[in-house]
Amino acid sequence: MTEPLTERSARIVAARKLTRRAGRDAAGLFLAEGRQAVAEALADPAGVREVFVTAAAAAASADLLAATTVPVRPVTEKAAASLSETVTPQGLVAVCALRDVPADALVAAPPRLTVVLAELADPGNAGTVLRTADACGAGAVVFGAGSADPYGGKAVRSSAGSVFHVDVVRGAPLPELLPRLQAVGATVLAADGGGEAALPELADRLAGPVVWLFGNEARGVPAELAALADARVRIPMRGRAESLNLAAAAAICLYTTQLAQ
Amino acid sequence: MTEPLTERSARIVAARKLTRRAGRDAAGLFLAEGRQAVAEALADPAGVREVFVTAAAAAASADLLAATTVPVRPVTEKAAASLSETVTPQGLVAVCALRDVPADALVAAPPRLTVVLAELADPGNAGTVLRTADACGAGAVVFGAGSADPYGGKAVRSSAGSVFHVDVVRGAPLPELLPRLQAVGATVLAADGGGEAALPELADRLAGPVVWLFGNEARGVPAELAALADARVRIPMRGRAESLNLAAAAAICLYTTQLAQ
Repeated sequence: MTEPLTERSARIVAARKLTRRAGRDAAGLFLAEGRQAVAEALADPAGVREVFVTAAAAAASADLLAATTVPVRPVTEKAAASLSETVTPQGLVAVCALRDVPADALVAAPPRLTVVLAELADPGNAGTVLRTADACGAGAVVFGAGSADPYGGKAVRSSAGSVFHVDVVRGAPLPELLPRLQAVGATVLAADGGGEAALPELADRLAGPVVWLFGNEARGVPAELAALADARVRIPMRGRAESLNLAAAAAICLYTTQLAQ
Repeated sequence: MTEPLTERSARIVAARKLTRRAGRDAAGLFLAEGRQAVAEALADPAGVREVFVTAAAAAASADLLAATTVPVRPVTEKAAASLSETVTPQGLVAVCALRDVPADALVAAPPRLTVVLAELADPGNAGTVLRTADACGAGAVVFGAGSADPYGGKAVRSSAGSVFHVDVVRGAPLPELLPRLQAVGATVLAADGGGEAALPELADRLAGPVVWLFGNEARGVPAELAALADARVRIPMRGRAESLNLAAAAAICLYTTQLAQ
């Protein structure tokens, strides 16, 4: 019987550095916690370095772990908790390779639907928009400089596995990227509560390739990026709310696009 | 110059009880924090008991506070922080009357669009769905027994003022309420990832009155309530995501309904 790794084991200490962005970028790795995320990760075993599991989680996920060629390492509850950013650690954590795709690849073959996030602040929103983008058939999600990191614990959890389904592009300079996508035929639409175009009137521009640009939760899309868009698009609202929550607005825009594609 | 109230003042101690649901229900009051929420609250001064404000916030919101007949009471930073559930307290807190409307009033005059939440767990989602419901023209949001409280700090913040725009019904027994709404002509639609009806095919059933039923973030709509609905509705998904985040799904359903009404 292998002795479980403790929170002081070198492997756990190294993995704990992945709970911070600098640690993830230095190692080229991130953590995926919980059965759903680990199952999604293990669908591409080459992308998983190792899996840490507590005795309790090993029993609960025996089927999943028996089927993989990735090294599975028993850990203590305390070690698992030290890797978790949740109140109730799940005892099952995969160490995964970052899944970044270069911006050039996106330009070389733009998907019918791409989502670009500019200065999105909240990691939960980052994961939720990734999940919605996946559900609506997006091929890629671009996280501009200054956006929340899709590989952080809360973002990975909110993405509910979608971080493993969609191409992720990080840190691309958006003022350069958007014109390059337009040059290869993409229509860039900026979600903007004060936009001149109403979403229901856009149907003929949504067939694709479409790039949806969403901004910061409080400030919206930065003006210099909105100016580059082919249209600034508002969601018509009937009630008295001043605006929609960013993830709700993204859901409406991306679903409307899916219907038109 | 009035001495500011401290965190030990009787008024602040009493207000602090409103950060817990039992305290809110006992007093019939809740707290709304921050300039936006307080401005929305003060639009109906009869619904506001008093406003607590720090010196810094009083300077920043002098226009707002000068215009109201509601008592404005200076408080210390520490007193304001003791009423806040945020990391960065805003120094401006209104004590407001609960805005509950009885279920009978809803049945007597059902709005074209009503949202019913069954066992919704997350307060942030409760507020976000309220905000989306407001934006899409809903007249009422019903929080069934076991749902998060729309008057909690996080829910009020997430609603971005919409808790003051939409009728709120709490604690109604949903197995009785839904048939009563159907009896007066409402179509009840349950959002259900495995539903037999696809949202885009529903257009002719959305004209209203429509009641959208959303369930728990993990378990969905309770089966006994889904069975009562006129249809169980799925959002078609093109990608590999298993499901949508609840607030994203609600945004898509409510926006689609708004377009049809």
